[in-house]
Amino acid sequence: MQVLGKPYRTIWRSQEDPNIVQIIDQRHLPHRFVVEDLRTVDEVAIAIRDMHVRGAGLIGATAGYGMYLAALEASSAGSPQAFLEALEESGEKLIATRPTAVNLEWAVKRQLDVAQKAHSDLFGLVQLARETADTIADEDADFCRRIGQHGLPLLREIAERKNGEAVNVLTHCNAGWLAFVDYGTATSPIYAAHDAGIPVHVWVDETRPRNQGAGLTAWELGQHGVPHTVIVDNAGGYLMQQGLVDFVITGTDRTTFTGDVANKIGTYLKALAAKDNGIPFYVALPSSTFDWEMEDGVHEIPIEQRDSSEVKYVIGSRDGEVMEVLITPEDSPAGNYAFDVTPRRLVTGLITERGICGAAADEVLRLFPEKRR
Amino acid sequence: MQVLGKPYRTIWRSQEDPNIVQIIDQRHLPHRFVVEDLRTVDEVAIAIRDMHVRGAGLIGATAGYGMYLAALEASSAGSPQAFLEALEESGEKLIATRPTAVNLEWAVKRQLDVAQKAHSDLFGLVQLARETADTIADEDADFCRRIGQHGLPLLREIAERKNGEAVNVLTHCNAGWLAFVDYGTATSPIYAAHDAGIPVHVWVDETRPRNQGAGLTAWELGQHGVPHTVIVDNAGGYLMQQGLVDFVITGTDRTTFTGDVANKIGTYLKALAAKDNGIPFYVALPSSTFDWEMEDGVHEIPIEQRDSSEVKYVIGSRDGEVMEVLITPEDSPAGNYAFDVTPRRLVTGLITERGICGAAADEVLRLFPEKRR
Repeated sequence: MQVLGKPYRTIWRSQEDPNIVQIIDQRHLPHRFVVEDLRTVDEVAIAIRDMHVRGAGLIGATAGYGMYLAALEASSAGSPQAFLEALEESGEKLIATRPTAVNLEWAVKRQLDVAQKAHSDLFGLVQLARETADTIADEDADFCRRIGQHGLPLLREIAERKNGEAVNVLTHCNAGWLAFVDYGTATSPIYAAHDAGIPVHVWVDETRPRNQGAGLTAWELGQHGVPHTVIVDNAGGYLMQQGLVDFVITGTDRTTFTGDVANKIGTYLKALAAKDNGIPFYVALPSSTFDWEMEDGVHEIPIEQRDSSEVKYVIGSRDGEVMEVLITPEDSPAGNYAFDVTPRRLVTGLITERGICGAAADEVLRLFPEKRR
Repeated sequence: MQVLGKPYRTIWRSQEDPNIVQIIDQRHLPHRFVVEDLRTVDEVAIAIRDMHVRGAGLIGATAGYGMYLAALEASSAGSPQAFLEALEESGEKLIATRPTAVNLEWAVKRQLDVAQKAHSDLFGLVQLARETADTIADEDADFCRRIGQHGLPLLREIAERKNGEAVNVLTHCNAGWLAFVDYGTATSPIYAAHDAGIPVHVWVDETRPRNQGAGLTAWELGQHGVPHTVIVDNAGGYLMQQGLVDFVITGTDRTTFTGDVANKIGTYLKALAAKDNGIPFYVALPSSTFDWEMEDGVHEIPIEQRDSSEVKYVIGSRDGEVMEVLITPEDSPAGNYAFDVTPRRLVTGLITERGICGAAADEVLRLFPEKRR
């Protein structure tokens, strides 16, 4: 997507030196656009652990490139056997940075798998690791692009009904390209519509406590030129009551194959309001986000509790300096629940890389028949 | 209610000099407790305009005392006629500070009415103004206290069902004693229960964009010793899904006699979640908050739009200094809708100074038969 008028991904190999991985250091957004060079697997581990990068797809891609840098380092090991051992060690180091990030472990294992099956010399192993890292990133971007293409007709149809008036889309949190390699999930149909000349306007939920909407989604939409308005998380219900929302779309951290959607805290409230006002509520996800085992998401998906300081303090910029301010009494306790689960009955449809389906086991399995048991 | 272990109201006449009105300057909460002396009607006008005081009941009481200070100043006018003219002028000045605050105009008119009907000398007129100011404040406190007494049995019943486990109450915004003279509306049953030894715990919605929950409700509950936890506005739905909320109660800025409730933006989302999870949703209000004309609150109550800076910037404290930080891209637009309307079908009941009734015209008019047309 566009940044300062130039197309970017969230992660890429440097054009000057293909052994340097470059990322957008997202800790500085939306206040500063900082590109960071990563030269070692240790630097990649820090970038993942300290959230220079975040979002399921991007964490996976970063781990993929981390394993490529690990392979470069391991190529001095002397033997393929020693190379593989060094690579495994680096993989463990990467996985430990964010143990609950499923895509991280998946990308590390994919790299190890390729290396273990290769029967190649050290030069070939390094080349394979580079190709695999590129493939992981390309696949992520491609899946997101497809989600956009599948979602596009939904927005086009609303636009036709509205006779050229802008389609008002509401989204929560950041399921944007910053969370993936490109396009994003929830944002992908929006970018596809915008790029196709369909007038769209996005209501961007602030998304307390970490403000990924106000900070990241607003920034990426603004950079790509998509009209948008930031609102507090409280406002969506009112906007829907007033007919100011045509379409709601979010991403998801985990969706059961039966259609229950775990996503950033507050998503459930928007889904309730969409239902109450007859507004379509869609969830965009690559199929890797499905949980193919769990049937009752509302009662079974574990919800992470995070540090209360994220609620008590707000991070922002003042005179160009990023700082945090206390908004509660010093000694008031705060609760910080990271996700909620939107039950399938509130979900109009799921937009995947293979197409759209209803939030129900039989519909999901029709799109992904290989997952039938 | 208690502050630093001492009982306070939000406004009172100084014990040292009864011609000095004292208020809690709420702009410094929750970070500092500042009592401000008001000696002239001009100082009162500034205190109302610049929101040293806020909340319907408290604005009314402050206007009442402002008119008393105006009477003190006007007593040098020479004749009752000149006194009345000066008083009217001060009244207009006060009303102009926050033109949409209904209680402000009401308190000013009540003072003028008393003075105009008095046929008293200047000394008597000043005394009358003081008594009227005290009465307005006392009545406000008394109405709030009654709301607490009527709401108390609802919490007691839940406590009995829970066998001594704390009753979990969720509230949105600040309909606490800081918005009135004492007790508050939504908080009054909570204080009554706490003071009666019923274990209560309050989930305090942060209430973006102005954070009246995180800043004011959390502070007043903490000062009075009521266990509470601050949460982001996004969290309530999840807590309800998990059975962690027994009772939801809010205040209101305007409620139609048919039961539609205008309140701080986000209230509607909590009402939807309460309904979806079978949790009682009550609204506490003095009868002065009823709109006796309007029938369809959702479509007729006008919703104020405020400055977008309240969304883009967050005010908090850093190293003891209160400051604001920018949380969005500098150039992203933001929308700031102040209220939403919760339709009557989502409201379990209304708690007034006369008792509890359903959110329906016939039930409201049964409690207030003098309002039948």
